[in-house]
This record gives sequence, structure tokens and C-alpha cells, in this order.
Amino acid sequence: MVTSRDVADAAGVSQATVSRVLNDPATVSEPTRARVLRAVEALGYHRNRAAATMKTSRAHSVGVIVAELANPFYVEVLESLSAAFSARGQRVTIWDSSHQAEAAVQAIREGTVDGVVMAAWREDSAAMRAALDSQRPVVMLNRLPAGEGFDSVTSENRAGGALVAGHFARHGLRRTVLVAGPEGVSTADERREGFLSGLRDRGLPAPVVLEGGFSYERADVQMRRHIERHGPPEGVFCANDLMAVAVLGALRGAGAAVPADTWVVGFDDVSCAAWPVVDLTTVSQRGREMARAGAEMLMDRIEGRAGPWRHRVFEAELVLRGTTGGQ
Amino acid sequence: MVTSRDVADAAGVSQATVSRVLNDPATVSEPTRARVLRAVEALGYHRNRAAATMKTSRAHSVGVIVAELANPFYVEVLESLSAAFSARGQRVTIWDSSHQAEAAVQAIREGTVDGVVMAAWREDSAAMRAALDSQRPVVMLNRLPAGEGFDSVTSENRAGGALVAGHFARHGLRRTVLVAGPEGVSTADERREGFLSGLRDRGLPAPVVLEGGFSYERADVQMRRHIERHGPPEGVFCANDLMAVAVLGALRGAGAAVPADTWVVGFDDVSCAAWPVVDLTTVSQRGREMARAGAEMLMDRIEGRAGPWRHRVFEAELVLRGTTGGQ
Repeated sequence: MVTSRDVADAAGVSQATVSRVLNDPATVSEPTRARVLRAVEALGYHRNRAAATMKTSRAHSVGVIVAELANPFYVEVLESLSAAFSARGQRVTIWDSSHQAEAAVQAIREGTVDGVVMAAWREDSAAMRAALDSQRPVVMLNRLPAGEGFDSVTSENRAGGALVAGHFARHGLRRTVLVAGPEGVSTADERREGFLSGLRDRGLPAPVVLEGGFSYERADVQMRRHIERHGPPEGVFCANDLMAVAVLGALRGAGAAVPADTWVVGFDDVSCAAWPVVDLTTVSQRGREMARAGAEMLMDRIEGRAGPWRHRVFEAELVLRGTTGGQ
Repeated sequence: MVTSRDVADAAGVSQATVSRVLNDPATVSEPTRARVLRAVEALGYHRNRAAATMKTSRAHSVGVIVAELANPFYVEVLESLSAAFSARGQRVTIWDSSHQAEAAVQAIREGTVDGVVMAAWREDSAAMRAALDSQRPVVMLNRLPAGEGFDSVTSENRAGGALVAGHFARHGLRRTVLVAGPEGVSTADERREGFLSGLRDRGLPAPVVLEGGFSYERADVQMRRHIERHGPPEGVFCANDLMAVAVLGALRGAGAAVPADTWVVGFDDVSCAAWPVVDLTTVSQRGREMARAGAEMLMDRIEGRAGPWRHRVFEAELVLRGTTGGQ
């Protein structure tokens, strides 16, 4: 697909000029305007519908849909989004997906926000699907629904899960537990798949899978119950850091030493994972950078600078700290 | 001062009916209307100005001004506010006081929000003072500026600081450190005063005061520097839990055992203070309950049910965990 950058290159002008010719032609000199319009025609460039709709009325306000503020990962994402948008002069409205999905959809439809970053997604939520189908600029952050019609920023969840499997395998851990996130949530599903297939590929036994629902309390209960029945495992991979902290507490309560008896790995690398009292080995997904990238993508889309839908994927990296041995 | 409840009692109707008579009289039958208006006159009832202004145009939207999302206390407050407001059908706009105080004031002035909860306050911020002077309903949460014209929910910060001094005194700790919050912030000032006067009243030496600025990084640096020069103290009181976690890390890095060598106490009782890996003794200020009370106060004010300004103060309580000995 032809983008406004292609048009800008062909006409020898900036993308901003192309945007001005299409949205506010009076501000561009006649020769430049003609050159840009010739390039538009020659290349067969079509602005995407959402961007075109947007230019007519700007609210200078954006929305962010989050879930799970109990999870520090989303708090860090929210903080970075809020700073990035306000640096661009945007008001930010925040909705909690569990109570306010309908309010968000209404604001999107009524145009009281120019666009939305969705850092939450459930396949079974009609309100969220409606937000996505609204033809307003949407950036999906960390969650990737099926279909198209949005930009996205995600990280390599599958590869991250596989990294943990590789680390356990290299150090001969065979009796492992996965404290998984909720089924049907893309990040949870991908981390689970990456870990399971990583173990399988290396000929290791499948882990015991505990459903932790991304919740501290749930992971705590599940892990205690598992230890009571089966004793502490050799390695535990938790699909987020919050659950990993709960698992550390459950192991401590049972008198299991970390990492001497049991290795524990999280996912996210939130600030408290690096606290010396936590010192958690984890898969880093650089939430703050992802948030900044997402804010930039949304502003590009709102201001008509974006071309085809963009999907940016951040690399996953295993950060080794005190809850595992090995290198 | 006479409240709408007094009028309702005198007229033998509900408060909602009083409100309808004053705001939308056509919806009330003539005999009831007359009875209510007689009671209004007999009792000399005046609606407060802010509430009266409000009733004319409702945005069904409220604002929350927060600072320091790096501090989990404010995240928990925000979560509870968001749940409470959305349960009442309100949209919630969140502003970060460090970037967006001006945007908040503009929204308040333009009436795009019906009222505001301010969980941040700086005496030197003209924008914040303007928000307070806007005649719109404002609830101050946890921070208490000078002057009047608002409802507030705070906790006993001074008494909380004194509780910690008492605990240290009872167990004979003499060489103590206070990791203080920023001067000019009411919560920080009050906790400092409570701790200092608590030690003084018991004839104990004054603590070394380190300026931690309510920040993890700052508290970490200050505590490391202090230990290098003076060795680990017997007791450390930190003006919030986030700084206490940093202090635990700094002590661990220096090889000091907690609580064998040094006792550490925080303030807030955020969820992670109770994590077994943190297990922090702290002054609880029940942020979630404070937030719910604040949301209720704001809705009362917006919907014209509130009388004189209300100032609700939550009790402080010392929660003993593993970072101190004693009872």
C-alpha cells in the first residue's frame, strides 16, 4: 500500500506538507500543492478512512482503556502514556475495562476523544469489539485481538516463554510449574504456548499448569495448594511478575529456599522486580518504551501522518537476578 | 448550618424531593412543592453556591488529579476512586499533577467535569490554587491545603508519626533516622512533626533527617550514603512505604540485618507492604476506604446533597510486621 511518505518522497516535500495539502490546502503554496497532488494521483494514494474522518473535528483528547491497575505493569504503562500524551497537549481520559468499557465506547462514538489506546482486550467483550470497529484511531497495546483496523505495539510473548524454558532446560530443571494467565487473553496464551513448546522441543516433561488469572491472590492460593500436595517444584515460571511475587511468598511460607530449592521467573520486569528485597529473574518487556511508541503511533494516526496499519513488536529479554541461578 | 436533610425532615419528604423542588419544580406536585418551600423559608435554608451552580448543567464526568503514580498508595487510591465513580455512572478523567495541572483547571472552569478529587497538592502551584478557587465541587484527598472551600478526607498523619516514635521509644531505640517526604507537602510535614515531637516528648535524641522526597531512588541514595558514613542506625522511619522498601534494599546491600540490626517502619500500608518478601511494619492509612469516602463526598456535593464543608479524618494505626520487633 502506498503511504503518505511515498507521496512525500515522490514530490520532494515533507510528510507534514503532504498532510497539509490534503487537509488544509490553503496553507500550502500553489506550485507545491500541484506537485503533491500529481504525486498522489501518480501513485494512487488513498488516505485511510479513519485518519480522514479524524481531521474534521479534533477534541484534543485521547482515551486509554486499562485493566488490572493491581498489576504494576499497567500502572507503568499508564504513567508513560499519560506523560507522552500530555507532552503533546492532549487531555487523557482513563477507563477501567472492567467497569467502564461501555463509557469508553460511547466517548469514542461521540468523538469526545480523538483516539484510544487499548491496553486491555477480551475477545468476549462486545463493547471492546465495538470500540475497535468504531473507525476511530485505535492502538492496541500489549494485547493483540484477531482481525484488523488498528495499530499495535506488543512484545514477543511466545519467544519470552521459550527463553524461560531454555534457561530451565540448560540447567537441568525437570519438575516445573507454569502459573498461567487467563485463557483467551493473548499475552497469557502466547507466554503459555512459548513455555510449553520450548520444554517440548527440548524433550523435557510438560509442566504442571496452575491457573493464576494474572492475580496475586489467585497465584498465592494455587501455589500453596500445589506445594502442600506435591512439595516445592524445581522451577516455576509465572506469566507476570505480580504472580511471581505471590509465588515467592508461598515458597517462603513453606520453608522452600529460592533459588537453592526452587527457581522462580516472572514476566514484565516491573520496577519492583528490581527491588533488592524482591530481586526477581524475569522476562523484560519494556512497558514504558512500548507505551511511548504506542502514544506516538496514536498521534500519527490522529494527525493523519500514518499510512497502513503498523504492528511494532518489542524483543523479549531474560533478565537474570537472584531468584534463579545460572547464566 | 441548615441542610437539605433538615428541610426534608421538616416537610416530611425525601431529600431527593427537596432537590427536585429546588432544581426542577415542575416534576413535583403543587401541595408537596408548597410544603417544601415553606420549610425552606421557615428554616432559612440556603443551598451552597457550588452545589447550586452545578445543578444547571451536569457533565456526568468527574476529574481526579494525582501525583506520583510511582507510589502504589496513589495507584490504589486511583483504582478505588475509578471503581466508585463508575459504579455511579460517572466518566473519570485523570490528570497527572506534574504535567497536566493546567489542563485540569481548564476542564474545571469549562465545566467539562462536574467536580474534582485532588489527591495532590502543592502550595506553590497557581494552577492548583485556581482549581480550588473555581467554585466547583472539590474534595481534597490525603492532602490538606490552607483555607477553605472544599471537602476533605485525610488521615491522622501527625498521630501516625507519633505512634512510630512511641514504638521506637518503648523498645529503647535511640539512634534513629527519619527519611522524610518533601517539605511543604502537608502529609510529609505532619508525619515529620509527629515523629520529631513524639521522640522529644519521650526525652529521646532527635533523629538524623534525610530528605527522601517520597521517591524510591532518592531514599535509596540517601540511605546508602548515611550508612557509609555512620553505619546502620537502630531504627528508620520512612514517610512512605515506597521509601521504606528502598531503605530495606540499602540495608541489605550494606549487610545490615532487619530487624536484628535495624528496625524499619513505613507509612501507608500499600498492598506490597504485606507481601511476605517485603513484610513491612507500617502505619496504615486505609487508602482504599479514604478514596471511597472521597468519591461519596464529591457525589453528595455535585448532586446538591451536601451541607457545610466536611472534613473526615481516618485514624492511623501501626501495623506490626517482620521489619521490626516488639509489640
